Amino acid sequence: MSDKVLLDYGSGGRASQRLISELFLKHLGNEELNRLNDAAELAVSGRIAMSTDSFTVDPIFFPGGNIGSLAVHGTVNDVAMMGAVPRFMTCAYIIEEGLPMDHLEIIVASMGEAVREAGVVIVSGDTKVVPRGAVDKIFINTTGIGEIIVDPAPSGDRARPGDAVLISGTIGDHGLTILGTREGLDFQARVESDSASLNHLLIRLVRELPEVHVLRDPTRGGLATTLNEITHSSRVGCHLDEGSLPVRPEVAGGCSILGLDPLYLANEGKFLCVLPGEDAEKALEIMRADPLGRDACRIGTMTDENPGKVALITRLGGKRLLGMLEGEQLPRIC
Amino acid sequence: MSDKVLLDYGSGGRASQRLISELFLKHLGNEELNRLNDAAELAVSGRIAMSTDSFTVDPIFFPGGNIGSLAVHGTVNDVAMMGAVPRFMTCAYIIEEGLPMDHLEIIVASMGEAVREAGVVIVSGDTKVVPRGAVDKIFINTTGIGEIIVDPAPSGDRARPGDAVLISGTIGDHGLTILGTREGLDFQARVESDSASLNHLLIRLVRELPEVHVLRDPTRGGLATTLNEITHSSRVGCHLDEGSLPVRPEVAGGCSILGLDPLYLANEGKFLCVLPGEDAEKALEIMRADPLGRDACRIGTMTDENPGKVALITRLGGKRLLGMLEGEQLPRIC
Repeated sequence: MSDKVLLDYGSGGRASQRLISELFLKHLGNEELNRLNDAAELAVSGRIAMSTDSFTVDPIFFPGGNIGSLAVHGTVNDVAMMGAVPRFMTCAYIIEEGLPMDHLEIIVASMGEAVREAGVVIVSGDTKVVPRGAVDKIFINTTGIGEIIVDPAPSGDRARPGDAVLISGTIGDHGLTILGTREGLDFQARVESDSASLNHLLIRLVRELPEVHVLRDPTRGGLATTLNEITHSSRVGCHLDEGSLPVRPEVAGGCSILGLDPLYLANEGKFLCVLPGEDAEKALEIMRADPLGRDACRIGTMTDENPGKVALITRLGGKRLLGMLEGEQLPRIC
Repeated sequence: MSDKVLLDYGSGGRASQRLISELFLKHLGNEELNRLNDAAELAVSGRIAMSTDSFTVDPIFFPGGNIGSLAVHGTVNDVAMMGAVPRFMTCAYIIEEGLPMDHLEIIVASMGEAVREAGVVIVSGDTKVVPRGAVDKIFINTTGIGEIIVDPAPSGDRARPGDAVLISGTIGDHGLTILGTREGLDFQARVESDSASLNHLLIRLVRELPEVHVLRDPTRGGLATTLNEITHSSRVGCHLDEGSLPVRPEVAGGCSILGLDPLYLANEGKFLCVLPGEDAEKALEIMRADPLGRDACRIGTMTDENPGKVALITRLGGKRLLGMLEGEQLPRIC
């Protein structure tokens, strides 16, 4: 094959076949994908969670991952937030003519590692190559399905006054990493994306505590926007304790230099958990036993005051309403 | 809202919420999508077909459809080719900053019409807006799942010597339409894309004739490439009768002017059906009873000669091997 991706590779003809067998099947192959039908045949049963996401992150390589691993983590997490075991995934690439083939191979290999780690199988795919300039390097869509194991499933409209609000770890790492890498900023301490598949931890959590009301990953728009969505859907208020928010010192430092607020920065390996207050300690114990939940902590409480609003209780005891993200802090963050 | 799509609309914040509720839910809304969870909860059972496709067609509007209707038809068809009733679909948009909002609305409204006609429900979605120049206008990914109703499902590796090869109608219409529109060519007679959802016809067909061996839509790469894939997977040969190939005179004319071969042009509303010879007449009867199969005809026979090869028996009685598409005739055809 050429050392760059050519238009032919997306033609549906012979060159596409070579790209599929020599690159995609090499890293992602399995019994179903190898059949190369237009659709895959799967056995699933019961209540299914389904989620889709397109990834357009810029740059495509960044500390802590690349667009390929991110595309797996993002969709695995969205499915798992429904209390579902992610099982199957589709993957669709839109590639700019001229992308170096070794870049594509690194990306596809990362996807292979990520799906094996998450325990999901890529069952169907699609590859389009578009002329130079029609897309910036590579965009990837992943769509996943999984089997829901709790009833009712966690949902954004199930938060209740008195519920504890937990976060599985530090916030802002992904957003600051992408911005720093894109702009070529040299942070004193190394900052890394937190991009990771949370499904194994989440499944342990809901198996032990099926009473979890809401699970949500605070990606685009960050923690503040996600909490606003939950309080809006559930018609509850939220008190968020500023002093308890876990932020790495290097992320806090980078944010203060750049005028960014970690509450609005995307995370790709963290989740919010809203559940009855009496279960909070048990949940934190389960989360902290997993490396991906090591820094888990309680950051607030749902209330019946100000339904639909999120109030930040500041370190000085003041109270400030946190709105949704207004405008766009960071396009192409994921 | 602004009359152009702004970066904010893909931020995940307040502007995204407005775009979702005022445009997407207006045209595509349903009980599950309206909940706006990161994933949808569905009830499906048994053997599931799953397929994904990204649509990058240029131009985004063309005679016979637009990128929105095409994105629904394409995935509905891929799912139905497995002998499955398409049920649920996800939809992910990547939009270039500055796309006129009324263009987006036409596209989304077309998707709404197409899903209602096909009887599928869009259950989850994603919207990214990328800066000007990072994508050409709009790309759409759709991923669909459906319930397989025949056992075994039709599959590209099930063709047998003696099987009849049927096509549901004329070939080359979509490919020639896209090229003509893109290049601003003025064909004497109007040519239109055949883009359509074939699921209702396909389901009638497999219910009456569960013995169907292969169903495939000859999209990118055209009829010749799809038949090569089938003969390769099934290890059979194929004799294709040139005189029986249905090609509209205006498509044949356009192709001869442009030096294109309708056998390699994409179709978006046609299917190939391979089944035991004795069932061919019954299948044609079912197909012709549907407006989408009006021009259905038998075009060839699978053989045990030259496994993996497709031979065209020319009008003069000669024999010519038809390979897969080599190179790229038409990028961004779908």
